[in-house]
Amino acid sequence: MEAIDPLNITLHPVGFVSSSIKDVSLKAGKDGLRPEEVLKNHRKYRQMVEENICTITVSEEYQELLDGIEEFSHALILYWPHLLDEERRTLKKVHPMGRKDLPLTGIFATRSPARPNPVLISVVRVLAREKNELMVKGFEAVDGSPVLDIKPHMKAYDTEDKVKVASWLEQIEREVGE
Amino acid sequence: MEAIDPLNITLHPVGFVSSSIKDVSLKAGKDGLRPEEVLKNHRKYRQMVEENICTITVSEEYQELLDGIEEFSHALILYWPHLLDEERRTLKKVHPMGRKDLPLTGIFATRSPARPNPVLISVVRVLAREKNELMVKGFEAVDGSPVLDIKPHMKAYDTEDKVKVASWLEQIEREVGE
Repeated sequence: MEAIDPLNITLHPVGFVSSSIKDVSLKAGKDGLRPEEVLKNHRKYRQMVEENICTITVSEEYQELLDGIEEFSHALILYWPHLLDEERRTLKKVHPMGRKDLPLTGIFATRSPARPNPVLISVVRVLAREKNELMVKGFEAVDGSPVLDIKPHMKAYDTEDKVKVASWLEQIEREVGE
Repeated sequence: MEAIDPLNITLHPVGFVSSSIKDVSLKAGKDGLRPEEVLKNHRKYRQMVEENICTITVSEEYQELLDGIEEFSHALILYWPHLLDEERRTLKKVHPMGRKDLPLTGIFATRSPARPNPVLISVVRVLAREKNELMVKGFEAVDGSPVLDIKPHMKAYDTEDKVKVASWLEQIEREVGE
């Protein structure tokens, strides 16, 4: 019995995503875009993600681990942004959505994919499971993303009733109309 | 610009947890315990976790990344169960809570820490932040756990309205009274 070495953490993909999202261009705020263009893109992007149906194909050795997932309506998918430039893991602060009118914010106070350990999380709807394939809806991952973990979404674990968020996020939500 | 290698994923702790939880004995179902004992332990454990106040100390190089986190009431902490035996990462199925009366369930349909990539997630309350220290409440991590990522908890990203869970989990929630 050997405990896991806390300083040398190696993960292996348990599967991969097939997604109609082929790149992150719609999401990434480009320099020079006006705020209303960024907002329009963001709105379009959120809608597209909500409707996006993906197949997660887990390696056959992990097929059995999916048994019972179809009893849950939603799952958390942990995945790896394989298109992210390695060097972006060293960023310390960003303007949310690349908008200069929003405050420069520490990476740990944003959901930016550019972070020291870019393990991304999405809550998705479980549509169907067939052998080693899981069909899900509302998944933000780019095509080909390695999947690191699949967990059932549980209210008792994952949800809080009274949540306060930063004012810059309230502003985005107001503008996007979420 | 070099894209991240999807097959060789290495994480580095961004900090460590100081917690009053020193081991996982109360949580882990031991063989031979009667179901009502397991349930009593589970209830005690959940209460203890809810009240548990921890300090997350991030490495000084990451201090700035926390700027702005105090504007959020809740955060997601991704952490690594450093006391987990390496060999338990190969488990395929478990009885939830070690209870033989609950169905043998695939690891991806449970929140067992024993999983191929044991990246654990807790939603915690943000109490205070002082330089490179973050005080949080309701964190399940064992003392000394490496922290992999800190993200703000956002309803739009992390919460779903209508969530259906497996009937074994409904049974547990009924029994525990959650």
